[in-house]
Amino acid sequence: MANRTITSPLGFRVSAVKAGIKSSGKSDLGLIVSDKACRAAAVFTTNKTASASVVLSRDHVKSGVARAIYVSSGNANACTGKRGTRDAHSICRHVATALGIDEREVLVTTTGIIGEYLPMDKVRNGITQAISGLSRSAAAGQAFGRAIMTTDTRPKTAYEPFRLGGKWVKVAGATKGAGMIAPNMATMLGYITTDVNIATSLLRRTLREAVDHSFNKLTIDNHESTNDCVIILASGLADHKPIKKPGSELKKFSRALLNICDSLARQIAADGEGARCAVTLKVTGAASALDADQALRAISDSFLVRTAFHGADPNWGRIVSAIGFSGARFDETKLSCKIAGRSVYRNGRPVRFDPKELTRRMRGKYWEVEVALGAGKYEDFRYTCDISSEYVKINADYHT
Amino acid sequence: MANRTITSPLGFRVSAVKAGIKSSGKSDLGLIVSDKACRAAAVFTTNKTASASVVLSRDHVKSGVARAIYVSSGNANACTGKRGTRDAHSICRHVATALGIDEREVLVTTTGIIGEYLPMDKVRNGITQAISGLSRSAAAGQAFGRAIMTTDTRPKTAYEPFRLGGKWVKVAGATKGAGMIAPNMATMLGYITTDVNIATSLLRRTLREAVDHSFNKLTIDNHESTNDCVIILASGLADHKPIKKPGSELKKFSRALLNICDSLARQIAADGEGARCAVTLKVTGAASALDADQALRAISDSFLVRTAFHGADPNWGRIVSAIGFSGARFDETKLSCKIAGRSVYRNGRPVRFDPKELTRRMRGKYWEVEVALGAGKYEDFRYTCDISSEYVKINADYHT
Repeated sequence: MANRTITSPLGFRVSAVKAGIKSSGKSDLGLIVSDKACRAAAVFTTNKTASASVVLSRDHVKSGVARAIYVSSGNANACTGKRGTRDAHSICRHVATALGIDEREVLVTTTGIIGEYLPMDKVRNGITQAISGLSRSAAAGQAFGRAIMTTDTRPKTAYEPFRLGGKWVKVAGATKGAGMIAPNMATMLGYITTDVNIATSLLRRTLREAVDHSFNKLTIDNHESTNDCVIILASGLADHKPIKKPGSELKKFSRALLNICDSLARQIAADGEGARCAVTLKVTGAASALDADQALRAISDSFLVRTAFHGADPNWGRIVSAIGFSGARFDETKLSCKIAGRSVYRNGRPVRFDPKELTRRMRGKYWEVEVALGAGKYEDFRYTCDISSEYVKINADYHT
Repeated sequence: MANRTITSPLGFRVSAVKAGIKSSGKSDLGLIVSDKACRAAAVFTTNKTASASVVLSRDHVKSGVARAIYVSSGNANACTGKRGTRDAHSICRHVATALGIDEREVLVTTTGIIGEYLPMDKVRNGITQAISGLSRSAAAGQAFGRAIMTTDTRPKTAYEPFRLGGKWVKVAGATKGAGMIAPNMATMLGYITTDVNIATSLLRRTLREAVDHSFNKLTIDNHESTNDCVIILASGLADHKPIKKPGSELKKFSRALLNICDSLARQIAADGEGARCAVTLKVTGAASALDADQALRAISDSFLVRTAFHGADPNWGRIVSAIGFSGARFDETKLSCKIAGRSVYRNGRPVRFDPKELTRRMRGKYWEVEVALGAGKYEDFRYTCDISSEYVKINADYHT
């Protein structure tokens, strides 16, 4: 079968090993290494208690160039003070020395429990082992997808080839993220490789736009993580004419990148911790972008709405009343709500519907909630999921 | 035993009956009737999809005078359009006619499922039956407390007598509210009776202050209800000199009223849907009142924090990282966190603690989380609870 992993674009080798950071003994450390210096761009969490990894990588990626990404799961290296900062530097140094590259060409990403120090002996041994296992194979790409999982139940990858001037260009991504997901930033760990040849400024802008319209629409549990980041490395090895300015070629790349990010974001929502269903929330007719955001946030943050999703319960009152306290402007004589394609509230009045039939629709894996505010022309959406007893169990016991 | 219910202050009769609004057949309709015109004040939800009951009562209470309060549970009469408004008027008319008072002296309050029409035949029969059962007994007061329950597991009442110029004055309250509770307004149904003799303007101000420092500190599920209200009726029958201006007598009344509201608010937190524990969140060292609010909201709204409470899991990383995305200003070299009296994070660094001992403390019914931001002198608090699998079960199936 064709390679559809992050080793598919030209110029990348990856590796994943069991370093012993996760107490479960599962695969927990990975590396992405480029044959040559890549153009690099990244989007990071806006959380002020960002992990030492985020702080250091944010600094390193400013140059627009990177050669390697380190990732480990099981420990976030967040809220770990100066020692955490030293550990992050030490990781970059160790990777750089082993690969014979500059320390500043290494980006470091971590995910897992907050507030514990990294087991640096294990980390260093893991890096050495990972470097010796670097490979361009599809199997290595798949193993990387598994190594970054924490409470994820399955690896999440996406792949999109497209043609520029008759030449093939590939974009591929891998992501993790099942809990501690809120909007308003990059919301998980995401790694994207491509062999597109593009100016750094355009790469940055394209990534930011793609993240804004995909990962930043995700919300699982109202909790923006300390470690979120999405990184893209562009090797430039595809044989097309370099993209140096906006135009149809940039548009093709933008579309491919958005497709990758959107696919990964939907996979995260569908694999939300304990989730039974992935729900797309849509708001139309908002008086402004802010109103749309307020309405979506009130719906998605409500424990009541999200548990009703879990019960496949067409309890539209919870959705409509969330609009009422959201702060968003609406016209109460036009306020309307649809669940899973069925109208349940129209122009400020309940609509008769068959609750059993609607419950059957809501028992599906993918469906939508649409609220029309009747106050303007703005619209927006969010990817979310239900909140289940399983979510509570996973998160009541994650630490201990 | 002495009467410690809402019939204890002089001048009130109450009643509770099974009108058949709740499908369970439990007690679901109550009346509070005053022998003479009372001074009345109320605080209502700020939800823009407020129920027809709230809209009408808000209008009626403007006069500062009331004689009766109607309450029923099982149906919120919210999002019910013009028919809901007509039904609310019809209730007031029916109560007023039967008691021989003015329709505008009746306040109407409802709680329960949103978006269904009230079964008005049952409501009218229930009112007739309730009026015939009005009583000053403690038993009637207790029955009223049970009639207003929805998913509450127990009635919630409070009582506080105090002396003004050698004369006894009584304040008593009853409340319901276990879900759909968020701060930023009155957050449940609360009924307070007193025989204090006080000017309406002072009664209003005192109630507003007491609600701000008690019910408005409650948050259970980030969902502000369509029906919340707190109403106080003051019969003026206690034999003290009337309170007509601020001073030591007003202070005594304010303190008693705050004690009532605080006690009721804590009872609501402790009886949060599916809750195992009642947690008081405190933020100190905030740069402003808004910063304190942002920090508290980020902690209390996080599904991750609240499920960790349930697991008695001292996962302080979730609390500290919530501060990071809250928007509140903090000094990272001073940021500190205590859970259940134990320091877990101090001046930006993890503190060693015995997790088993701390888990034992968190298994208790009442404990605190305290976060010091190190950025100023403002502080604030919230009453909240854990989120359990039981919460999910209750709310995934409430409608159907």
